[in-house]
Amino acid sequence: MVDNVQLNAEGKLKHFLSIDGLSKTLLIEILDTAESFAGMSEHAVKKVPLLRGKTIVNLFFENSTRTRTTFELAAKRLSADVISMNIATSATSKGESLLDTIRNLEAMFVDMFVVRHATSGAAHFIARHSAPHISVINAGDGQHSHPTQAMLDMFTIRQIKPDFAALKIAIIGDILHSRVARSQILALNTLGAAEVRVIAPKTLLPAHVETLGVTVSHNLTEGLEDVDVIIMLRLQKERMTSALLPSESEYFKCFGLTPEKLKIAKPDAIVMHPGPINRGVEIDTRVADGPQSVILRQVGNGIAVRMAVMSMAMQVKGGS
Amino acid sequence: MVDNVQLNAEGKLKHFLSIDGLSKTLLIEILDTAESFAGMSEHAVKKVPLLRGKTIVNLFFENSTRTRTTFELAAKRLSADVISMNIATSATSKGESLLDTIRNLEAMFVDMFVVRHATSGAAHFIARHSAPHISVINAGDGQHSHPTQAMLDMFTIRQIKPDFAALKIAIIGDILHSRVARSQILALNTLGAAEVRVIAPKTLLPAHVETLGVTVSHNLTEGLEDVDVIIMLRLQKERMTSALLPSESEYFKCFGLTPEKLKIAKPDAIVMHPGPINRGVEIDTRVADGPQSVILRQVGNGIAVRMAVMSMAMQVKGGS
Amino acid sequence: MVDNVQLNAEGKLKHFLSIDGLSKTLLIEILDTAESFAGMSEHAVKKVPLLRGKTIVNLFFENSTRTRTTFELAAKRLSADVISMNIATSATSKGESLLDTIRNLEAMFVDMFVVRHATSGAAHFIARHSAPHISVINAGDGQHSHPTQAMLDMFTIRQIKPDFAALKIAIIGDILHSRVARSQILALNTLGAAEVRVIAPKTLLPAHVETLGVTVSHNLTEGLEDVDVIIMLRLQKERMTSALLPSESEYFKCFGLTPEKLKIAKPDAIVMHPGPINRGVEIDTRVADGPQSVILRQVGNGIAVRMAVMSMAMQVKGGS
Repeated sequence: MVDNVQLNAEGKLKHFLSIDGLSKTLLIEILDTAESFAGMSEHAVKKVPLLRGKTIVNLFFENSTRTRTTFELAAKRLSADVISMNIATSATSKGESLLDTIRNLEAMFVDMFVVRHATSGAAHFIARHSAPHISVINAGDGQHSHPTQAMLDMFTIRQIKPDFAALKIAIIGDILHSRVARSQILALNTLGAAEVRVIAPKTLLPAHVETLGVTVSHNLTEGLEDVDVIIMLRLQKERMTSALLPSESEYFKCFGLTPEKLKIAKPDAIVMHPGPINRGVEIDTRVADGPQSVILRQVGNGIAVRMAVMSMAMQVKGGS
Repeated sequence: MVDNVQLNAEGKLKHFLSIDGLSKTLLIEILDTAESFAGMSEHAVKKVPLLRGKTIVNLFFENSTRTRTTFELAAKRLSADVISMNIATSATSKGESLLDTIRNLEAMFVDMFVVRHATSGAAHFIARHSAPHISVINAGDGQHSHPTQAMLDMFTIRQIKPDFAALKIAIIGDILHSRVARSQILALNTLGAAEVRVIAPKTLLPAHVETLGVTVSHNLTEGLEDVDVIIMLRLQKERMTSALLPSESEYFKCFGLTPEKLKIAKPDAIVMHPGPINRGVEIDTRVADGPQSVILRQVGNGIAVRMAVMSMAMQVKGGS
Repeated sequence: MVDNVQLNAEGKLKHFLSIDGLSKTLLIEILDTAESFAGMSEHAVKKVPLLRGKTIVNLFFENSTRTRTTFELAAKRLSADVISMNIATSATSKGESLLDTIRNLEAMFVDMFVVRHATSGAAHFIARHSAPHISVINAGDGQHSHPTQAMLDMFTIRQIKPDFAALKIAIIGDILHSRVARSQILALNTLGAAEVRVIAPKTLLPAHVETLGVTVSHNLTEGLEDVDVIIMLRLQKERMTSALLPSESEYFKCFGLTPEKLKIAKPDAIVMHPGPINRGVEIDTRVADGPQSVILRQVGNGIAVRMAVMSMAMQVKGGS
């Protein structure tokens, strides 16, 4: 079985490293658990004692204030103790290896690592080499996987359009370098979406992208036809300077989502983006802030989904 | 009404952005609430559950360990969860706008922003553009306002000399660039102080300073006569190099508070300073550490006043 | 009495600054208290309310992620509020003196300082100048003392070999610059170890080292004979460039602990190291990860020992 390192002997979630190898049943269990936490965020007291006395370590080898903050909030709302480590300035600078850092933290009786790393496979590596009592959550590894982002996207879609089998979803932008897109495609196919389309210039698509279970378009106007859900990807500035793309304005002209382009999709189509958005590069500000945008709802749902994954990996039940 | 963005429909404190526009009644309510927290700091357990389950975000766009630490302590002693964000190294460095950062944090269901920013008006801007459930506390914006500092000064004065109507207060130093002085002058006048004097070289006074409701002196020896409360301001080193002042030693000779100068004021006059102090620049070390100094008492009172403002803005009652 | 600043009027621990001046009875009380916390680390809920409502400030003037993290975890598991201050980037950079920083934090009604500083004597200085209600814990000062490290080493030794009077202990490496070694030698002698040997090249031994109560060897093969406990020290890279040592490989050949060298000691000898380890410099990776190594157990014990010292200094009883 692929990636069964993620499951314990009873088939329950132990680590959350990638969507790959997880069943539809398990993904739905994550969404249902997140549902039970989502209501809580609007309570006066946004806190449950599910992970009281547990220690969660944020191991961020790559800087990401937004993702780190949502994991930290999720952990605190579960009443866990959180230690955030900026690894760039820590022990590894004394020449200690990643494995020694992990072994030392384990020895301090911590319960969970939330790992962000620029290298694909880093979270898997840590999960494979951690003590049995530790759970590992992947908060983004290289160009490989960002499974909590994908699940918060699934959660947001399901809130508004509950029947995945009826949905055509377009993912637009830099598919080639996007761990978010990889995880979304896997999750959407596992949940049985009617069609997953990727829309991008040829230079920003992986070779043999069809084998991921997607249809392909190089033209935004054609690609948006009949679509229920539009997922924009963030365009990294460095793509511009690396000769993969002519210029920001050229990119925006061809692949930027404007109010006019949006009209091509179904009238009730929703617009998503993992953030942070580049206004005027991949998305027009009128679309980002418009009535079809659910971008900020995604952010809030990120807390609920992370609370779900964290509590499930620790084998505790919860929600209100 | 000026600044009524600070008050909710019932006239209660919703944001705390500046002293401007707040009534004497409201300022006294803040002082009375702080009084109820001040005793608690000496208890064995310095914690009340007033803000349990609330999330407070320290948004510090400008570094200030001391102020950030007092807000963090105040929040923790109210049992809130605190996230401290050093914005210089975060999302905005990915090119995200201030407003997008705010929108994203709001979407995470946080309850309060504590804002420190080098630009005058930043906290007002954020308060005006935040969701209705969010409270904003100004922890210092540019040269405009530092209202919690002013209120902890008022609290300290009232502890020792309760009748503002009987008091002559001198504020000494760089009035021109000081957000602290602006807020102090407003608070003292609102609370009905008998006289507020500013003492400074002409280059460090704003034009038409009298319109703020102060009397003016350019001579420390004359200005200190008959004074009950002496508030020294911190002299920023950069004033020296900017040709506004001849030299540190020259400044100290004219405007530094020495034991000799202190004798000119009333014998029971108290000496205050917002910190951190420049020993030998604006204040002689014998005065800073002397029996009339209440500088360290101000620091402790800062916690009580910040607990008061935070709990009032969240519409919870408290104290012991 | 030496160092009696550490004890209150009843002879109880008030500060924990160095092993010097502490009685055997007190060291054993620390070990026994740590014992009561050690079991807790494996509980589902690793938290006791002993220091609820207390504020502990981590004052790290020198960067040390590992030590700071264990103190932070220890404090959180005692339910204290923790503020971590990276002093390099804080108030002192505004020109404030160490003493002013301390005075200000005291005024915020904090209860404990955990101090790490590059200057020998810094923690003593702070303890001597702090308000009576404050406890100070030394987390390493210059080349002087690192008493919590020494006590976690004693705790680890006692877990495996409870009778100190029967033990020969070898400390190997850079004795000259090591605060850890100084504290270990004092603790072992106070606890009545049969023999403490130091093994090092002459350039890495202090003058008159025998007066510390140790036997001396310059030869690892001779020195390891008959030894029950082997404590390796970390070799700082800067020693290599400072002409005190020829080269890393030369050092490893003479003083590196290999499986072959380890056989010279008693068959049940244990191998210790304060971390972080330099694999292939002072210790062979097969020894570091081998069955006689207790290096990771030391890390976990560090939490229990720090919980013990913190709760004792605050005069609260605890453990499970």
